[in-house]
Amino acid sequence: MRTVDIIQKKKEGKAHTKEEMNFLIQGLMDGTVEDYQMSSWLMAVCFQGLNEDETAYMTEAFINSGEILDFSDISNTVADKHSTGGVGDKVTIVLIPLLAAIGVKCAKLSGRGLGYTGGTVDKLESIPNFKCTLQDEEFKNQIKNIGAAISAQTPNLTPADGKIYALRDVTATVDNKSLICASVVSKKIASGANIIVLDVKYGAGAFIKTKEEARELADLMIKIGAKLNRKIEAVISSMEQPLGTHIGNSLEIIESVEFLKGNYNKDLYEIVLEIASHTVILANLAKDLNEAKNLVDETIKSGSALKKLKEIIKAQGGNPDCTENYSLFNVGKNKLEIKAENEGYISKLDALNIAKACKLLGAGRDKKSDNIDFGAGCILNKKIGDKVQKDELLCTLYFNNVEENRIKEAVQSAQDAYKYSDTEPELQPVLYK
Amino acid sequence: MRTVDIIQKKKEGKAHTKEEMNFLIQGLMDGTVEDYQMSSWLMAVCFQGLNEDETAYMTEAFINSGEILDFSDISNTVADKHSTGGVGDKVTIVLIPLLAAIGVKCAKLSGRGLGYTGGTVDKLESIPNFKCTLQDEEFKNQIKNIGAAISAQTPNLTPADGKIYALRDVTATVDNKSLICASVVSKKIASGANIIVLDVKYGAGAFIKTKEEARELADLMIKIGAKLNRKIEAVISSMEQPLGTHIGNSLEIIESVEFLKGNYNKDLYEIVLEIASHTVILANLAKDLNEAKNLVDETIKSGSALKKLKEIIKAQGGNPDCTENYSLFNVGKNKLEIKAENEGYISKLDALNIAKACKLLGAGRDKKSDNIDFGAGCILNKKIGDKVQKDELLCTLYFNNVEENRIKEAVQSAQDAYKYSDTEPELQPVLYK
Repeated sequence: MRTVDIIQKKKEGKAHTKEEMNFLIQGLMDGTVEDYQMSSWLMAVCFQGLNEDETAYMTEAFINSGEILDFSDISNTVADKHSTGGVGDKVTIVLIPLLAAIGVKCAKLSGRGLGYTGGTVDKLESIPNFKCTLQDEEFKNQIKNIGAAISAQTPNLTPADGKIYALRDVTATVDNKSLICASVVSKKIASGANIIVLDVKYGAGAFIKTKEEARELADLMIKIGAKLNRKIEAVISSMEQPLGTHIGNSLEIIESVEFLKGNYNKDLYEIVLEIASHTVILANLAKDLNEAKNLVDETIKSGSALKKLKEIIKAQGGNPDCTENYSLFNVGKNKLEIKAENEGYISKLDALNIAKACKLLGAGRDKKSDNIDFGAGCILNKKIGDKVQKDELLCTLYFNNVEENRIKEAVQSAQDAYKYSDTEPELQPVLYK
Repeated sequence: MRTVDIIQKKKEGKAHTKEEMNFLIQGLMDGTVEDYQMSSWLMAVCFQGLNEDETAYMTEAFINSGEILDFSDISNTVADKHSTGGVGDKVTIVLIPLLAAIGVKCAKLSGRGLGYTGGTVDKLESIPNFKCTLQDEEFKNQIKNIGAAISAQTPNLTPADGKIYALRDVTATVDNKSLICASVVSKKIASGANIIVLDVKYGAGAFIKTKEEARELADLMIKIGAKLNRKIEAVISSMEQPLGTHIGNSLEIIESVEFLKGNYNKDLYEIVLEIASHTVILANLAKDLNEAKNLVDETIKSGSALKKLKEIIKAQGGNPDCTENYSLFNVGKNKLEIKAENEGYISKLDALNIAKACKLLGAGRDKKSDNIDFGAGCILNKKIGDKVQKDELLCTLYFNNVEENRIKEAVQSAQDAYKYSDTEPELQPVLYK
């Protein structure tokens, strides 16, 4: 078998055998397949695609390239969740303590963020002293003891995906659904989860642009999960506007805490309820959707979800008092209010524009080595469908030390994010697959 | 400008600006564009293509990546020739002394062969002590003194093409006409030629499979040449069967010498006559095709072309006596005759099968570091259109020390090369563009 022949085969649109896929992925790890051969193959895949079998082979090859966690001695219904990413997406931070409080064991592996805002790991690290780099044994013991742990992905899991993802990022080969599927599903399976919950986001603020593409990706991930004997559920949600009201690392933790206190924004609540309820059913802790939804609501109202979050914070070295005393967070010392330029209904609130504003103020990073200012971000007072008067407060930007021209650019970007109309706009519901 | 954005642009089928092309090619040379980014872009080019402007930008960027030879102090009609490659292709070895004897200065840069048989440099090195690695000054002085020199390509010319060609070879991105065009035309322009003669081959024994593709490639190269102010002429010829009668390094030199003595095979003669005559016209040494053809014929008949070959051999360190005494060559000590299995007209003589047989006997190499046996090869007694009786001699294989199983495989491959029919087959003419 020669690498160049395998690349040629894909270029011609032919399907690979399992042996060919293993040759490629194992070869990349042992150095017999060069990076420049892999990237050429990845581009051919973007044009010719992979069928379901090929996608499953790739997923398995990723899993087998590294360590595989095993929680079978703790529970056979351990859940993990993955979001394809969006602006203001703090679902994980709310969902994990909520599910753990209900009794679903959660082994959550998360990433750091590249781009506009931080990833879940960055957000959690805005809690002073919170430690996200758990060793395998610590991770497992915490799940055994308090039912949930959230850790940064270790490079020992699916290293082949890590290597390929790094290549895709710089060779314009990110946006292929089979490549995305193999990357996501392999990571979740290697992390030892039996129940895998996927939150597939589409729209201006997500890298998947249409509902149709999101649906196709969700379908594919569910099928590949089934081929590899894992229960996968997927929720498809719009990312036209940011999720919830707070964007930025510390601010998103504060919104999550408020959520668990029962003070929640409608769109965030809707998606958390949907995901949590279906997971509870998959874990056999409720008979039907109605019972599951009541259980979820009850767990928030009773304060037991908030209590679980505090336990997680404490177990991972953070100060749980921060849930009562927000001054323990770094929140931007400076504020700038953005006012409505027109009156009418908010018809658009461009997630990317808001994210860009937050990044200009220090909330995101371009390179892995860049620093993040946890205090930078934005609180939205108005979202799509809200009626506003001219000069009414739309949102507030938070920041610490930022150059004048970046602040100006951020203000402009936030201002441009809002569009107005005379009629009330329609909102996209959350879909369950 | 970011490399990933340029790759994305090509992936979406958009055209590059000159600045983008220079960013890519210069970046590859200075290390700011990685090999794995270039190979991903090359694959995108295979799917989306390059337009004529982009192809010209790439050609120029290749030329500017290295040294550019200049013969303007010798003549403003210096010719160079390039063949897209084929089995038994010894046109260069005949053509260069022939043109030089007529008075066309020839600065010929050639390559070594990878694959089935050797390149022109390998063939010439089968002349004992012939030296193909001329320094720029030696090369130039020889052209000044005797009108022609044939040297191995120096890595100082078009180094960007060298780097990209090495990548294309192992990433299944060889077969794109714009990439081929930029590679060939840049090398010929950087070598200082004003008159560029291209021999574009198609068919089973060439990497271009159809006449239509060959015509498109020739058209493109002529257009790109015109954009860069160079006279390019192209001849399109079929490579269904090997060219001439001898295949293998020493054997091809012997056939070339015989040609210049006036003992030529029809198909080789036809293509040499065509290329030589048009070049003579471009160099203003004949008014029309008729005059040019007479001049070419006269130069062979008078023996002055053979005399020029001897001068070239002598100037480059070889022994010109080899043109009279073939025992000075390494020609395989062992012979094996292949006999006709049927009677009838030869309807096919598969060039690849013959080349494969020669390679099995040692005439070609897989890796740059492999050794070639100059003595290995094949002499064809029968070609397409010839009528044969059963058991009549088709061809003879020549070799030195070869393992038994390789010999068996070579015999089979040579046998399989011949196909028979009851009716006389039609031959493809040489086309001039």
